[in-house]
Amino acid sequence: MTVSAWLAVDAGGTSTRCAVVAEDGTCVGFARVGGGNPISHGLAAAAASLGESARRALSSAGIRPDDVGGAVVAMAGIALDASLERSIADAFGAAGVHAPIRIESDAQAAFASGGGGRSGYVLISGTGAAALRVEDGVTTATADGLGWLLGDVGSGFWIGRRVVVAALEDLDGRGPATALTPLVLSRLGLEDARRGDGHGGRSGAVSELLVHIYRSPAIALAQFAALAFAGEGDAVADGIVADAGAGLADTLLAVRSPHVDGAVVATGGVLAGQERLRAHVEASMSQRGHPIAFRVVPDGLEGAVALALAQAGVAVDDAVRRRIHSTLGRLRDA
Amino acid sequence: MTVSAWLAVDAGGTSTRCAVVAEDGTCVGFARVGGGNPISHGLAAAAASLGESARRALSSAGIRPDDVGGAVVAMAGIALDASLERSIADAFGAAGVHAPIRIESDAQAAFASGGGGRSGYVLISGTGAAALRVEDGVTTATADGLGWLLGDVGSGFWIGRRVVVAALEDLDGRGPATALTPLVLSRLGLEDARRGDGHGGRSGAVSELLVHIYRSPAIALAQFAALAFAGEGDAVADGIVADAGAGLADTLLAVRSPHVDGAVVATGGVLAGQERLRAHVEASMSQRGHPIAFRVVPDGLEGAVALALAQAGVAVDDAVRRRIHSTLGRLRDA
Repeated sequence: MTVSAWLAVDAGGTSTRCAVVAEDGTCVGFARVGGGNPISHGLAAAAASLGESARRALSSAGIRPDDVGGAVVAMAGIALDASLERSIADAFGAAGVHAPIRIESDAQAAFASGGGGRSGYVLISGTGAAALRVEDGVTTATADGLGWLLGDVGSGFWIGRRVVVAALEDLDGRGPATALTPLVLSRLGLEDARRGDGHGGRSGAVSELLVHIYRSPAIALAQFAALAFAGEGDAVADGIVADAGAGLADTLLAVRSPHVDGAVVATGGVLAGQERLRAHVEASMSQRGHPIAFRVVPDGLEGAVALALAQAGVAVDDAVRRRIHSTLGRLRDA
Repeated sequence: MTVSAWLAVDAGGTSTRCAVVAEDGTCVGFARVGGGNPISHGLAAAAASLGESARRALSSAGIRPDDVGGAVVAMAGIALDASLERSIADAFGAAGVHAPIRIESDAQAAFASGGGGRSGYVLISGTGAAALRVEDGVTTATADGLGWLLGDVGSGFWIGRRVVVAALEDLDGRGPATALTPLVLSRLGLEDARRGDGHGGRSGAVSELLVHIYRSPAIALAQFAALAFAGEGDAVADGIVADAGAGLADTLLAVRSPHVDGAVVATGGVLAGQERLRAHVEASMSQRGHPIAFRVVPDGLEGAVALALAQAGVAVDDAVRRRIHSTLGRLRDA
């Protein structure tokens, strides 16, 4: 057994990304599989995704599981208990990886990706949403991140749920007409049948839409978030995006401290991917007297790679960071 | 085989109630088992509860399943599709009942329980929430009833979720202090540890609360609704009850028609059980120029019994209604 590589995993609600990195920061393997968040997918399914991502990334790199020296797993970190660590270790074990595993919060990994120094803030909106304050490399405050059922204001789930509710209110006449309604129906292959031929005086489209939604896991509502952005120019769609931006600004304000300056990293598929949402957050922060300029990081994978190397005793300097960034970027684009 | 009895089932989110009734309206058997709603519990578990309620009610009455002439099942009726009817028929078949089954909405059954004539309104808040307009015995409009994930404003789930969110916001300092926090924590056997010894600068109590909530089915949040009423006098708790009342008034207003007068039936465990919530709805309706006085019906079971007899060709007159009410009342209190 020759230790020659380390694993870094970033487990999100929609996808799980895994990189294999060599000692000098060169990323030699990469894989993307399904969602790996234990809150939204359940512990067993999440652990299975993690194991599968490791297996595929190692295989793409031609590296044997025995040669892995350690792993860092970044995930939405609200419930780090013993059963989670055990399940992840078991899943890695099944993939042949028996090296030590460290679990980190996805947002902290994203902050490490941002390369913005030791202290600052992270605002994340992917499938879920949270804000963190980082001081000297340690997370000292967290706001929201309460999961889809209790919070995650401004997240993909939260926006997608609002999109579907707006369509339902349009269909049953309780809300304004919106361009979101045909977008939601056509995504599900349903016809826009407003005539009341459904059960109990409902339109048939309402009943069919409800059947579709409740047959899927709740978290699948996040898939409708994209429609809020696709519907630009529609008052209801624009209102949902503006509310999400204001809600995310509330979350970010809740972790602000007058004693901590530094980069504000924007991350997660929704916030990193949607410039309009970031603009709403920035405008909201300015209005409240706390102007910010985001540093955008797509996800926490680069940071997880840097953390895995640091954990192995590698000095992660600027040259190593640049090598991680360029080699990982090539593998992701391939 | 001698037909000598009919079955009536009222399937709610928290419990499923079944009665066995003879031709003259005398209820001779009753049973209460766990929740039987296909949206909140899944189709398989809901059907199993229905079958179990029939088995126990028949056994308590000493009536053989073969002697049942027909059944009416009342349930939150948002998704009455073929697979639901088949599953219910299978579950009844497994209990030995092969008689024809008719499925009705729980709210419509509650309206029939109210004995308020052929037309009027029903407002229901149990685990879920909805309003119906009934004209000449037929439901002609439905508002909300969109299920816990998309609506059910003012329901037990909605109130319970608000209670837990209020406690979380208190614990992490984003919301006002509230008497709900110790109530929520003590219900779960957790200590009120506000010091930030949890993960990522959270209090330990927040992390433990989240672990508890996400390990249970979402619908279990409805159990916390009672705390909003227990916390009377606390501004946050009172605000949640007031918001629930205003939301239910919105739902009721959405089905009002100037052409339909008649009784307004209040039903469901939360609305029928909580006088303060009804007072908020009534005040809200008065403020909007539509004063009402509720007729309170605990659930739809009496109505389902009347519907089962009517379906069998029995003329359900006032004498039969009184007999249903008094005999069922004795069995339920036993």
